Amino acid sequence: MELYGLDTMSIEDFRSDLIRAGFLAESGVAGIYHRSFRYESIVRALESYISGASNCDEARRLYFAPVMPQSTLVTSGYVRSFPDLIGVISSFAGGNRELPELLDRVAADKDWTELLTATDVVLCSAACHNIYPTFAHQKVPSSGIIYEVQGTCFRHEPSEDPARMQSFRMHEFVYLGTAEGALAHRQEWIGRGSALLQALGLTLDLVVANDPFFGRVGRVLAHGQLEKELKYEVTAQISSDNPGAIASGNYHEDHLAIDFDISLEEGGPMHSACFAFGLDRITLALIHVHGTDLTAWPTSVRDLLSPPNPFVKSQ
Amino acid sequence: MELYGLDTMSIEDFRSDLIRAGFLAESGVAGIYHRSFRYESIVRALESYISGASNCDEARRLYFAPVMPQSTLVTSGYVRSFPDLIGVISSFAGGNRELPELLDRVAADKDWTELLTATDVVLCSAACHNIYPTFAHQKVPSSGIIYEVQGTCFRHEPSEDPARMQSFRMHEFVYLGTAEGALAHRQEWIGRGSALLQALGLTLDLVVANDPFFGRVGRVLAHGQLEKELKYEVTAQISSDNPGAIASGNYHEDHLAIDFDISLEEGGPMHSACFAFGLDRITLALIHVHGTDLTAWPTSVRDLLSPPNPFVKSQ
Repeated sequence: MELYGLDTMSIEDFRSDLIRAGFLAESGVAGIYHRSFRYESIVRALESYISGASNCDEARRLYFAPVMPQSTLVTSGYVRSFPDLIGVISSFAGGNRELPELLDRVAADKDWTELLTATDVVLCSAACHNIYPTFAHQKVPSSGIIYEVQGTCFRHEPSEDPARMQSFRMHEFVYLGTAEGALAHRQEWIGRGSALLQALGLTLDLVVANDPFFGRVGRVLAHGQLEKELKYEVTAQISSDNPGAIASGNYHEDHLAIDFDISLEEGGPMHSACFAFGLDRITLALIHVHGTDLTAWPTSVRDLLSPPNPFVKSQ
Repeated sequence: MELYGLDTMSIEDFRSDLIRAGFLAESGVAGIYHRSFRYESIVRALESYISGASNCDEARRLYFAPVMPQSTLVTSGYVRSFPDLIGVISSFAGGNRELPELLDRVAADKDWTELLTATDVVLCSAACHNIYPTFAHQKVPSSGIIYEVQGTCFRHEPSEDPARMQSFRMHEFVYLGTAEGALAHRQEWIGRGSALLQALGLTLDLVVANDPFFGRVGRVLAHGQLEKELKYEVTAQISSDNPGAIASGNYHEDHLAIDFDISLEEGGPMHSACFAFGLDRITLALIHVHGTDLTAWPTSVRDLLSPPNPFVKSQ
């Protein structure tokens, strides 16, 4: 039995522990892990637990594929702001005539990927990005619309820190409507989300934060984001001495409205906000605090993570 | 209430029905769908139902990320056989100096993807492909090893047929060991898998099939695969008049053993086999047969799809 001291577990130790205890297995590429069914059972239980607090219409609860249209990545401004984190998908568009060159290069261990052609799909950058295109060139009611969405997102940032996976799950509550509505949604979900996470035995902090915008221009964007307090992160101890973000509340102002041409019925651009739970990071934070033996987790936590089966039973 | 006649529902009608009933929503790219929580509840219930028949060690039950190492795609021979279906992931590897060119092309709607660099990750080709690298240059016991795995796979084949998604889930039972063991595993799972699916009210056929190998050389490979009966497909009516494969049993002979240098403890190459359930296609086949109203599904089917919660409850 390991001792889960909050101050003593380095990134390396926690990573080894997760692998030894069989939660994660290495894939051969940093930041990509194989996950055990036991690890996944925590993620699934978290999903249901979080969904229990859902305040949106049944019709607006969506799971997204891990891939999305390239146009969404471009229009959302993500390529401009985070070009180093994106994942554009290429495939072979040649025929029988072009094939031998590809096969020769593969066999000779030469670069064969330059013979590929970019497709119209990319890896999902953020779950909520899938929503905005569905409202492009439309008006949303000023009373606001709320979505509950989940998706597997990708960030190209190879790291040995298990809390920095290249492929990870986000569970989000997204608001489209007025500026006041967006700020109220974020405020409400920061409170509700923090309460949900605290009830699981996590010790949290709430901090003003910024996204990792790329390069020199990015530093200006990050500064503006901080100054306007557009991004709040809910942090918890995961592995290192520095706590990590396990959830965040984001106010987008009218950026996505301008990108996708979404306006309010009463006139003016839509404003939007989201509160995103990082399911994999919350799972790691729970293992860090409560240990690798799920049966030894506090009774209150295990009960909260055992919601009713979502499928409609006949009796 | 729609009439779900097996012979009358065209691909187009079934697709419209799925969207109108709120199971799927269009993403803007053919073959990529947003899924409702109700659709996902069927997929999740299927997972648990199938796992209930698992015959492998707890430690060998793994969920894979939708991305995997590029080396796995190459070594498994998938690039050679299906170059048109692969998804290689590129990102921006430049710095501040290269950024303006990227931003200019994005803004001018010119091809910006050619400025990207292939990463060492690709989209997952088949769930079981993640297993073989973990045994590279090793020996497996002749008594055999069984894995239960799940993963989101990608095939670049845009189609309007909802049964041909570009991103879809596979749930597999994989055997590594002797030739006799591999054939017995496939035989056993064709029986067990078919019984599981029949109990859900699906009418099945078992047919000898071949993979969609690429190009001229591919036709020879496909012919050999058919002749040796290496692939069996379990088919059911999904949407068109032609039934589609909802599961398959595959005998790989020693191909993956040779690709990844895996041998038997008693000497000679390993042989492998897998039985793969297509979770999204099974979900579509169930909706096609039982209708869009889950509460109206046969009692026996709803009971089978309401397994106990997998998380360890305290009481």
